[in-house]
Amino acid sequence: MTVHRLSPEILSAMESAVGQSGVAISGSDMAKYLGDWSGDHRGGALAVLKPASVAEVQAVVRLCGALGLGIIPQGGNTGLVAGAIDIEARGAVVISLERLNRIRLVDADNFVLQADAGCVLQAVKDASEAHDCLFPLALGAQGSCQIGGNAASNAGGVNVLRYGMARDLILGLEVVLPDGELWDGFCGLRKDNRGYDLKQLFIGSEGTLGIITGVELKLFPRPARIETAYLGLASFEAAVALFRQARRATADLISAFEIIGSECIDLARLVDADLASPVEAPVHVLMELSASAAVDLRALLVDFLAGAMESGLVAEALLADSDGHAKAFWAIREGLVEGQAKRGYHVRTDLSVRISDIPALVDQARHFVALEHPGWLPQAYGHAGDGNIHFNVLPPEGLTVVEARNRGADITAGLYRIANSLGGSISAEHGIGRSRHRAFWAGLAPAHRRLVTALKQALDPDGLMNPGCLLPPTETVP
Amino acid sequence: MTVHRLSPEILSAMESAVGQSGVAISGSDMAKYLGDWSGDHRGGALAVLKPASVAEVQAVVRLCGALGLGIIPQGGNTGLVAGAIDIEARGAVVISLERLNRIRLVDADNFVLQADAGCVLQAVKDASEAHDCLFPLALGAQGSCQIGGNAASNAGGVNVLRYGMARDLILGLEVVLPDGELWDGFCGLRKDNRGYDLKQLFIGSEGTLGIITGVELKLFPRPARIETAYLGLASFEAAVALFRQARRATADLISAFEIIGSECIDLARLVDADLASPVEAPVHVLMELSASAAVDLRALLVDFLAGAMESGLVAEALLADSDGHAKAFWAIREGLVEGQAKRGYHVRTDLSVRISDIPALVDQARHFVALEHPGWLPQAYGHAGDGNIHFNVLPPEGLTVVEARNRGADITAGLYRIANSLGGSISAEHGIGRSRHRAFWAGLAPAHRRLVTALKQALDPDGLMNPGCLLPPTETVP
Repeated sequence: MTVHRLSPEILSAMESAVGQSGVAISGSDMAKYLGDWSGDHRGGALAVLKPASVAEVQAVVRLCGALGLGIIPQGGNTGLVAGAIDIEARGAVVISLERLNRIRLVDADNFVLQADAGCVLQAVKDASEAHDCLFPLALGAQGSCQIGGNAASNAGGVNVLRYGMARDLILGLEVVLPDGELWDGFCGLRKDNRGYDLKQLFIGSEGTLGIITGVELKLFPRPARIETAYLGLASFEAAVALFRQARRATADLISAFEIIGSECIDLARLVDADLASPVEAPVHVLMELSASAAVDLRALLVDFLAGAMESGLVAEALLADSDGHAKAFWAIREGLVEGQAKRGYHVRTDLSVRISDIPALVDQARHFVALEHPGWLPQAYGHAGDGNIHFNVLPPEGLTVVEARNRGADITAGLYRIANSLGGSISAEHGIGRSRHRAFWAGLAPAHRRLVTALKQALDPDGLMNPGCLLPPTETVP
Repeated sequence: MTVHRLSPEILSAMESAVGQSGVAISGSDMAKYLGDWSGDHRGGALAVLKPASVAEVQAVVRLCGALGLGIIPQGGNTGLVAGAIDIEARGAVVISLERLNRIRLVDADNFVLQADAGCVLQAVKDASEAHDCLFPLALGAQGSCQIGGNAASNAGGVNVLRYGMARDLILGLEVVLPDGELWDGFCGLRKDNRGYDLKQLFIGSEGTLGIITGVELKLFPRPARIETAYLGLASFEAAVALFRQARRATADLISAFEIIGSECIDLARLVDADLASPVEAPVHVLMELSASAAVDLRALLVDFLAGAMESGLVAEALLADSDGHAKAFWAIREGLVEGQAKRGYHVRTDLSVRISDIPALVDQARHFVALEHPGWLPQAYGHAGDGNIHFNVLPPEGLTVVEARNRGADITAGLYRIANSLGGSISAEHGIGRSRHRAFWAGLAPAHRRLVTALKQALDPDGLMNPGCLLPPTETVP
């Protein structure tokens, strides 16, 4: 819709910067860059540019700066908050990092990997494994999300509990700044306390302060033993108590502690109709421990669970007997997310609270939906070990998309109110993007707003980096 | 020397802000706030103010802002880089946090502790232990350093390997901004991805962007088992290879991996003349593993070391048989630092390199000292698991302090050149302060300088926060 603004001169300058094959301007060529994975968001762009080197990223940023064009950095486009989709279609340029996709270095001796921002997360994980190392970031989207996007959005996932968010896994960044200059923040050091830690600015900034072109990552020894258990519990309270005991009993050998309300199992059946639930209980827990071969992890887990069953905290427990068995457990967790997507539009949230407040969050949210939005189906699951619950709500059959979205906005607002009243967060791991920035901004204290604005102004005074994302738009749509 | 500038009006305003007992202006009252632990630095101040509440910190900051007075936030004064000592004595005001010393909350269920900035680190550790939790930051100075200073300087220590720097242990901060406003960044959440992570700005900023008044910390399960070994090895190469194997063999159950050149043992003997070295080898390693009671850590360590001795990597190995025995091993590590202090002035560094470059760093540094500064005594020890070597150099007997300091400056510069040539850091954990800011600044790429300056300008436009620290001074001494 904005192609008419693209003059021959601008097109020619773009082609000079990234080559003809690096420029997409037709609707069909741009299509895959203008809609996100969830199907929830579509946007517009003046052009999609695909630089093939860091120097080309710099050239494109300088060109956009000279023309006053907004820049939307884009990775694998698997985010859920329209962080890389210009839903207001204000004539910005999408810069896709997909052609910057080289693993630069795997230094297994020092447990360091360097990669271009456009490397797919799975490729990073595979390259680490090939050197008998682990890069622990693990997400449903790992086959298509890009490591630069993971850094820019501070991605979370199922192993945060043990290894932290993307922020905790990054040793260094390479960033093209809004003026086109390159900041080389690679150092290869495990410990470096030379002044302000500038990489922290860009991690989680969602492309609003610069374009990440390269990442330097921490690798870990690959755990030689992994034990996986699928548990049935009576309540969310029991799950939280179990987690607390497990942290102490294992001294933090837990690598995942996922919680699944039993209502979610029907969603997983949309992907695998024959799926049999491993347990029959209101609340399921998928728990994973990992360690080196020198630790008898199986005995540790068996002893711990025996105690938990004896004390009545755990009702049913299944231990994976093989890798395949463990994968089948994980397929339930992954299937319920895919199953939701098959249901089309639904309310997605990404709430976090203090871990001990998880039961209150789920109770209040279920009560709210039942009372004020009867017929809508709540689904509660998430990374309980991080206090992070994806409390999602499926619309009843028969609603039009417009009706569902309107009502969905009310439900979302109600769930945010509940999270806020518990001192929680409306974005535990997905970020703010364009779909949450109003709720985000409304919830900020004045001092916090001033700091956010001052940072943005200091680094991107012209406001060209990912306009409309994270911060409230500074310009209005023409 | 600057008391004459303190008019009765200003003094009276200061007393209104913090009460009479909160103001020190005489040389004797100010003395302990104007010299650091090492004895290397002394500075001056117009006054030392000791606010007893967050509101009093705000009042003091507003007063200094109105008067255009520089502000030097000060914790336990145990830093080594003159970060809280105005060595140029430019008439700033020291704000000591020592009266803000309350543990605000220990939430063992959620593994969270909140404390005033002025709490001594040991008090934080004790409060955690009282709830059967661990706060893992561990420094020689933990009996007097303050947790706010640990946050402001992103302190390191002996357990970084397992638990990270102060940055990694902080969930939230409370900060009085340069305009006197309070930013409340406590949230109690393990996971929160709402936009820019503002606390990262203040961690490691050495008081140049605001005054930390409160910290919210991550606690951990207290490891029920700790095993400690003292090892003798032939070389730094062997120590690095051993570390690499140990990471894999234990899947990161190592909580400390300290390296000590055998020459340092004589320093420890300055503290305990009867000290017998546990091993006779060129390089000593103090290695600690920790885990829950469910892990047979002793067997794991014995097996690992047996293999390492069989392969010839380790020459001698002693396992601690009791807590007292382990403490005796640690007393060597702590004693050598105290022993150095007894020697008076010496060259102190805090270098880091890629772990695999540790042998090159030590070789080149020793060679440089032997060749260009014969008679000076190099001491190499540090946190090898982090790539962090304190390569210190003692002056020969008979030099005057002035002669030693002049030559010491040359030696320091030479050691920085070696670290830089290996792609290393001149400050792994101690920070920049006033003693390293010229070397720091000289080593920065232009894009990095611009970012640092832009941040400082954005948050502290009047340049009143810790002037002369970290950044080059913006004003000249009158």
